[in-house]
Amino acid sequence: MNFVKNAWYVAGWTSEFDHCLKALTILDKNIVMYRSHLGEVVALDDCCPHKLLPLSKGKLTEDQIVCGYHGMTFGKNGQCTRIPGQKNIPPNAKVHAYPTYERHNIVWIWMGNSEQANSTKIFDLPQFTDPNWASHHGDALHLKCNYLSVAENLVDPAHVSWVHPTTLGSAASEDIPVDFDITGDNIIAWRWIRDAPPVGFFQQYGNFNGNVDRWHYYYLHLPCIAVIDFGSVDTALALPADRRHEGCQIYALHFMTPVSKDYTIDRWMHIRNTAINDEAVSLKMDEMFKVAFDEDKAILEEIQIQEQKEESRPTLRLAIDKGSHIYRKRINRLIESEAHNASK
Amino acid sequence: MNFVKNAWYVAGWTSEFDHCLKALTILDKNIVMYRSHLGEVVALDDCCPHKLLPLSKGKLTEDQIVCGYHGMTFGKNGQCTRIPGQKNIPPNAKVHAYPTYERHNIVWIWMGNSEQANSTKIFDLPQFTDPNWASHHGDALHLKCNYLSVAENLVDPAHVSWVHPTTLGSAASEDIPVDFDITGDNIIAWRWIRDAPPVGFFQQYGNFNGNVDRWHYYYLHLPCIAVIDFGSVDTALALPADRRHEGCQIYALHFMTPVSKDYTIDRWMHIRNTAINDEAVSLKMDEMFKVAFDEDKAILEEIQIQEQKEESRPTLRLAIDKGSHIYRKRINRLIESEAHNASK
Amino acid sequence: MNFVKNAWYVAGWTSEFDHCLKALTILDKNIVMYRSHLGEVVALDDCCPHKLLPLSKGKLTEDQIVCGYHGMTFGKNGQCTRIPGQKNIPPNAKVHAYPTYERHNIVWIWMGNSEQANSTKIFDLPQFTDPNWASHHGDALHLKCNYLSVAENLVDPAHVSWVHPTTLGSAASEDIPVDFDITGDNIIAWRWIRDAPPVGFFQQYGNFNGNVDRWHYYYLHLPCIAVIDFGSVDTALALPADRRHEGCQIYALHFMTPVSKDYTIDRWMHIRNTAINDEAVSLKMDEMFKVAFDEDKAILEEIQIQEQKEESRPTLRLAIDKGSHIYRKRINRLIESEAHNASK
Repeated sequence: MNFVKNAWYVAGWTSEFDHCLKALTILDKNIVMYRSHLGEVVALDDCCPHKLLPLSKGKLTEDQIVCGYHGMTFGKNGQCTRIPGQKNIPPNAKVHAYPTYERHNIVWIWMGNSEQANSTKIFDLPQFTDPNWASHHGDALHLKCNYLSVAENLVDPAHVSWVHPTTLGSAASEDIPVDFDITGDNIIAWRWIRDAPPVGFFQQYGNFNGNVDRWHYYYLHLPCIAVIDFGSVDTALALPADRRHEGCQIYALHFMTPVSKDYTIDRWMHIRNTAINDEAVSLKMDEMFKVAFDEDKAILEEIQIQEQKEESRPTLRLAIDKGSHIYRKRINRLIESEAHNASK
Repeated sequence: MNFVKNAWYVAGWTSEFDHCLKALTILDKNIVMYRSHLGEVVALDDCCPHKLLPLSKGKLTEDQIVCGYHGMTFGKNGQCTRIPGQKNIPPNAKVHAYPTYERHNIVWIWMGNSEQANSTKIFDLPQFTDPNWASHHGDALHLKCNYLSVAENLVDPAHVSWVHPTTLGSAASEDIPVDFDITGDNIIAWRWIRDAPPVGFFQQYGNFNGNVDRWHYYYLHLPCIAVIDFGSVDTALALPADRRHEGCQIYALHFMTPVSKDYTIDRWMHIRNTAINDEAVSLKMDEMFKVAFDEDKAILEEIQIQEQKEESRPTLRLAIDKGSHIYRKRINRLIESEAHNASK
Repeated sequence: MNFVKNAWYVAGWTSEFDHCLKALTILDKNIVMYRSHLGEVVALDDCCPHKLLPLSKGKLTEDQIVCGYHGMTFGKNGQCTRIPGQKNIPPNAKVHAYPTYERHNIVWIWMGNSEQANSTKIFDLPQFTDPNWASHHGDALHLKCNYLSVAENLVDPAHVSWVHPTTLGSAASEDIPVDFDITGDNIIAWRWIRDAPPVGFFQQYGNFNGNVDRWHYYYLHLPCIAVIDFGSVDTALALPADRRHEGCQIYALHFMTPVSKDYTIDRWMHIRNTAINDEAVSLKMDEMFKVAFDEDKAILEEIQIQEQKEESRPTLRLAIDKGSHIYRKRINRLIESEAHNASK
């Protein structure tokens, strides 16, 4: 399985967790989650060690889970606290408890070695808390494909002209090459389409009278977070790239959660510097994103079917593939390194 | 496949067999059955040896099966009696005929070596024919799980408090330990819940004024029959265990028929010493059992899903698992012994 | 996979191909087909070599296919003609183009080595263009089974009495043996049922007053074409076999297209020397064939299920199996020979 374990993944938005048992699957692990009365989000292996019944089929009693088959009871740390009908509790009567962290209405879960869970390394952006920016949580896109294909798609500005011609792209960008930059932990792919009519969202909310310079910067944070910084600015202003926040700018955030090797949830949201107090614009954006992401989903699920059929990955590599190529290499290196450390 | 072959299994109630072809699967074998005009129940391999068409897709003509593809005809003993278009009938033109036996409105089938089929070893209870007892055939519970999990559940009094809190169990029994006895071919698990209010059925039909002593005796007959003797008696009477038939007593019988490694049919019925001429009570019992058995089904099918995922069986063994532990050991021993004899 | 590659297969009737992309699967290969503005039928591998997206998910622009993911464009010969965003087109930027041929409203495709595609070897019958015969394209029967079972069924006159008792056969033929002839590339199985009442179609359109001599000649052309020559003639005429065209004669043609190892499309049509200008009769025939072929489908799909279960093919060989036995032997020889040549 091609998963990086030592990483923070998004388990869901804050609004998804309450005082009841919620079963979910991340990196092929079945997990049961709930919010305790103190407000913490608890995440345990969703499998009673006795007969394997998912604990999520049991019930939550005073912040503890009571198994639905024989009443074995587990606390927030995964430790068994009661075995009906016997006094002693054997030391292996416990389930794994996953570290969690909550910020900006996002619940994160650490899937690897708990000792390495470091909440200071969780993804953040200053705009989340900047009053000049509006942040809006969107929806979750469920894709029947491996997360690597989803991530590739999110470091690939070139597909926009072909897959999203009515929302995010246009024919004007078809032949414009893509630039890449690999610094630190990020893979960045970008291109500018200069002096062309505004597209989609920017037509409607950008207040542009003439042509614009339009940019796409795709930041891929390994293993599973993508930030797409896109926007438009009046061509006449001839703004340099590092002042693009003076234009109309949007960060589309994608938090990919690999469910299994052929299923991925992509939770998406955006942060923008336009119409920041207008909830109607947020919903309008959601609608536009939903159209676009369904277009991606259709493509990616078809590719998944093909990849499962073919004996090998395609070998034709184009100039636009530099970002995805490096991404796959780095993911492989991370997985090998985890396997190496696990075998020590 | 974890099946014991040399055993009598229940193929169905008497009412399920008539003068027409019925296809069923037992121990992963496709079998075609019908009742001949003499009244015998015939059971043949459901596969024409010519092109493998199931014989059940053909037709029954004068107590013989005519294959629907080329008219090959087979008698009650599985021997081919006609090959249209040719005179000679080769010696391998035959299908296996399974020994069957019918008693107490139950049709039994022997799945192993026909020479070892001995009808005197078929399960029986004197109460079947005792006029002071009512016997009532219930229904068939179809479970998407291996029969071993179903059997385990039927030698496990402890689950009743958690899985059937509204019908067969109550919180009063949560912490009462289970006793076990292994004598001869039976595995017995039991416990008494003393001096507690009557539950479910006994509330309604037991005519009890105060608290009762309540018992569960689970008898597991290898490989696939379970008898659950349960009942209640007025606590004030202080009856010894061996006179519990003087209370209100029910035998719930479970005949498990393994269909495949992940599908089991549990035909259930009961025999009782209360309201013996009251058909309405029988139907009331059926309703209660259906609620309870659907609760079991929900648990067991979830466990099956987990068992297929996990690489190994759970290793946490509790005090209440003694019966199921011995059951699995004995089943394995029987299967190994059959494999050993087959290879000789 | 048990496919013969160096052969012409039917991809569809002429009416199935137009100026739009059509995805289909033949011999487990995904193929995209379309008719160009010059009228040729183009057939390419349905898989972009870049990211494996099926080309059929793209769009057809000026007789070229534009991939729906990044705009790679392929011409009628499968060669890539454009890669948006880059100038050079690498030599491996191409997909396989399959030879096609169209005649008598049938589109043929060559699935093997293109150099060996020879259109003079495509199946033909003089009656296709003979004005005394009516030719009528029927429908496509989709069968969830391997093509070998379908072919076997089409060199097997004996099954007609059992599978099609109301349309093509009758009890009169049950015990009549089958003759076989193996000359050149054809396997022929036949039998005459003499001096019996006419059946099905011939009752209605043959204008017979008394008994008829009825024939079935099954010609199996390897690997995947069957011609069933069947008809009836007045018994009183005592016509010799080689003058049977003087009776009421029908050629039922079956073009089997193996989709995958467990899915086959059988496109069927007929040519007849009776009521040749009566379209109503053609539709009547279609109806009758549909009844009969659904009877075959039911049998063959059941057998497929059994064959996938059993570890080996059945070993009981009857006198009527001579044709199918030789067929399987020859198919195996062809497949081995192709494998041998491929490894050279």
